[in-house]
Amino acid sequence: MTDRVYNFAAGPAVLPLPVLEEAQRDLLAVPGVGISVMEMSHRSKTIIGIMESAEEDIRRLAAIPENYRVLFLQGGASMQFSMVPMNLLTPNGKADHVVTGSFAKLAFQDAQRVGQINLAGSTEAGGFVRVPDQDELELDPEADYLHFTTNNTIYGTQWRLEPETGGVPLVADASSNIFSKPIDVAKYGLIYAGAQKNLGAAGVTLVIIREDLLERSPPTLPAMLNYNTHVKGKSAYNTPPVFAVYILGLVVKWLLAQGGLGEMARRNAEKSQLIYDLIDSSEFFRGHALPPYRSTMNVTFRLPSEDLEARFVDHAAETGLCELKGHRSVGGIRASIYNAFPRDGVAALVSFMQEFERTQG
Amino acid sequence: MTDRVYNFAAGPAVLPLPVLEEAQRDLLAVPGVGISVMEMSHRSKTIIGIMESAEEDIRRLAAIPENYRVLFLQGGASMQFSMVPMNLLTPNGKADHVVTGSFAKLAFQDAQRVGQINLAGSTEAGGFVRVPDQDELELDPEADYLHFTTNNTIYGTQWRLEPETGGVPLVADASSNIFSKPIDVAKYGLIYAGAQKNLGAAGVTLVIIREDLLERSPPTLPAMLNYNTHVKGKSAYNTPPVFAVYILGLVVKWLLAQGGLGEMARRNAEKSQLIYDLIDSSEFFRGHALPPYRSTMNVTFRLPSEDLEARFVDHAAETGLCELKGHRSVGGIRASIYNAFPRDGVAALVSFMQEFERTQG
Repeated sequence: MTDRVYNFAAGPAVLPLPVLEEAQRDLLAVPGVGISVMEMSHRSKTIIGIMESAEEDIRRLAAIPENYRVLFLQGGASMQFSMVPMNLLTPNGKADHVVTGSFAKLAFQDAQRVGQINLAGSTEAGGFVRVPDQDELELDPEADYLHFTTNNTIYGTQWRLEPETGGVPLVADASSNIFSKPIDVAKYGLIYAGAQKNLGAAGVTLVIIREDLLERSPPTLPAMLNYNTHVKGKSAYNTPPVFAVYILGLVVKWLLAQGGLGEMARRNAEKSQLIYDLIDSSEFFRGHALPPYRSTMNVTFRLPSEDLEARFVDHAAETGLCELKGHRSVGGIRASIYNAFPRDGVAALVSFMQEFERTQG
Repeated sequence: MTDRVYNFAAGPAVLPLPVLEEAQRDLLAVPGVGISVMEMSHRSKTIIGIMESAEEDIRRLAAIPENYRVLFLQGGASMQFSMVPMNLLTPNGKADHVVTGSFAKLAFQDAQRVGQINLAGSTEAGGFVRVPDQDELELDPEADYLHFTTNNTIYGTQWRLEPETGGVPLVADASSNIFSKPIDVAKYGLIYAGAQKNLGAAGVTLVIIREDLLERSPPTLPAMLNYNTHVKGKSAYNTPPVFAVYILGLVVKWLLAQGGLGEMARRNAEKSQLIYDLIDSSEFFRGHALPPYRSTMNVTFRLPSEDLEARFVDHAAETGLCELKGHRSVGGIRASIYNAFPRDGVAALVSFMQEFERTQG
C-alpha cells in the first residue's frame, strides 16, 4: 500500500483504489497483448472491446432505455454548453435555462452565443444557496428543451427532483453527481457529464441522448460538433481519448461491483449526513446550502472567520485530509465526497472538525 | 521487464518505455503528494507545474519564438479542422487547402462547412502517392491562410519543405510527424497535432499559434471554440485532460534527453532508410509512396498479392511485430515508426521481411 491521503478535491477527484491498481498493473502491457492501453490503436480489438464494455456497463448500471445512445466525447461539460444548442435548437427555436451556480451560468451564457435562450429561473440573487422550486420556474411550453445543472459543485446544492416540463425535453449537466444515485433516464432528452468528478479521469465526457433528438442536428454543423457523427462512428469517428474511456470503464465496473446506484445513494446519503449532522449541531460550523437543497457530493461550510478557515485547511492537510479549501466564489470549506470517496475519510474529517472546534473554537 | 511486443500502430502508437515506467510508478500516488495525477485538481500546484513544464519543454525542444502561444486542447486534429476556419477566417474571407490524403480531405470538407475554402492543390487523382510540388499549387495571395498536412499517415508521404505562400500564414496539421525533425515555427501561423502519434497518448491536441492571429477570432464564438479562451485560461479554462498532458510532458522530456529534434531527425532517417533500402532492392516489396515524398514516420508497401500480405501480417504478429496491417484505403503493409519506435524493432522487421521474401517469395 502506497502513501495515499484523503483527497477531498472537487474534480478531478478521488478514484477507487482498485481502479488505479488495475490501471497501474497493466500500464506497460495489457496481458496477452504486450502493449499499453495508451499505445493501442482505437481500431484494435482490445480498444473496441473496452469501449463496448464501458457502454454496456453504463447501460446496465443506469438502466438506460434502448432508445438512448451513449457517447464518449471530448471537451468536458463546457464543450456541451454550445454543442447542446447547436444540435438541439430547431430553426428559430428557443430554449430555457435554469441558473443555479457558476457552471449553470456559463452554460447559459455560452448557449446565448448560439441561439435564443431564456432564463427560466435563477437563484443567483440569493447567493446560490438553493435551487428553484417548481413553482418559481417560468417555463416556455414551446421551448426546444430546458437545461439545468443537477448538482452545483461550487455551492454544494442539488436538485432532489427533476423540474417538471410537460413535454419539453430535459437537458442536464450532471457532471458533479452523475451515478451518485438512481436516475430515471427516460425523463431526460440529453444528459452529459465530464468524467473527472464521479466517473473517472479528466478527458472524456459522457453524453446520453434520446435518439429522436438526433434528427434535429443541422447537417451544416462541422463533423466534431454534430452528435450524429459520434453516434455513427461509435464514439470513434476520430481517435477517442482511449485511456480516459478505459478508466471510466473500470470505474463503472467498480460501481456495479459495489452494488450499483441504489447502494451508492445509500452510501452517499450516509457519508454526507455525517458532516451535515455535525454542522447542524454546531454553532462553529455554518453550512452554505439551505438544508433541503444540500448536495450529497459537495458539502460546503464556513467557519467564524477567514483566518480560522485558512488554519482549518492547513491543519487538515497536515493530517492527510487534503484539498478542503472552498471555491473562491463561496470561500470557506468544501468537502467533495463523490462515489469513490471512502466513508473512513468522511469519519476522519468529522473527527478532525470536532477536534478543531474544541481546540480553536 | 514486462512482455512487450514491437508496436507498429499508426496512432495511438508506441510510447517511450521510460515514460510508461514513470507513469506506472507514480500512478497510485505522486511522491510527496499522496494522490494520483488523475485525481488532482487542475488548479493544484502539482498540475499547474506539470502543465507549465510541458509548455516550457516544448518551447525549448522546438525553439518556439516568444510571439507564439502553446495550447493543450481536446478533440484531436479533427476538432481543429473546424476551429481553424472559425477562428482564422476574416469576415467574408477565404482560405486555401491542399489535399494530400484522407485527413487533409476531411479537413478540407469540414472547413467548407464554416466558410469559403479553395482547393489549392490535390494529389488524390494519382492515389496520394506524393504531395504536390510548389509549382503545382494554385495559391490565392488574398487567402487568410493556407492549410496543409505535413505527413500523410495512411499513404506514407510527407512534405520535405513547407509550401511557399508569400505572406499568407501557413496552417499545418502536423499530427503524424510533429517533432520528428527540427521545425522552423516562425514559418507558420498555426501548427496543430493530436498527441497520439508522436507526442503521447490520445486525448490532448497541441496547438501552437502566432499571437497576432488571435485577433481574428470572432467574439461570438462559443467559449470552447475560441482560441483566446484557452490562451487566457492557460489551457485550463475548463478541466484539461490532465493525464494526457502529463504523458505528453514526459514524452517531451524524453525527447530533450535523447538529444532533441536534430537527433530525432537523424534516427528517423536512419530507421526509415533501413526499410526503404530493402524495398528498393527487392522485386517482392513495392513501396506505395514515390521516393522523393516518402515519410520517415509511416512506411507503406505492398506485396505481390493480398493473400501474401495477410500472411505477412499474421506471421509478423506471431514473432512479436504487431499492427503492421495497412489502412484499408491503401491496403498492404504499414510500418509506423515514430520517434519512440526503437531502431531494434525496425531491424527486426527488416530481418523478418528478408526471411519472408526468401521463404514465401
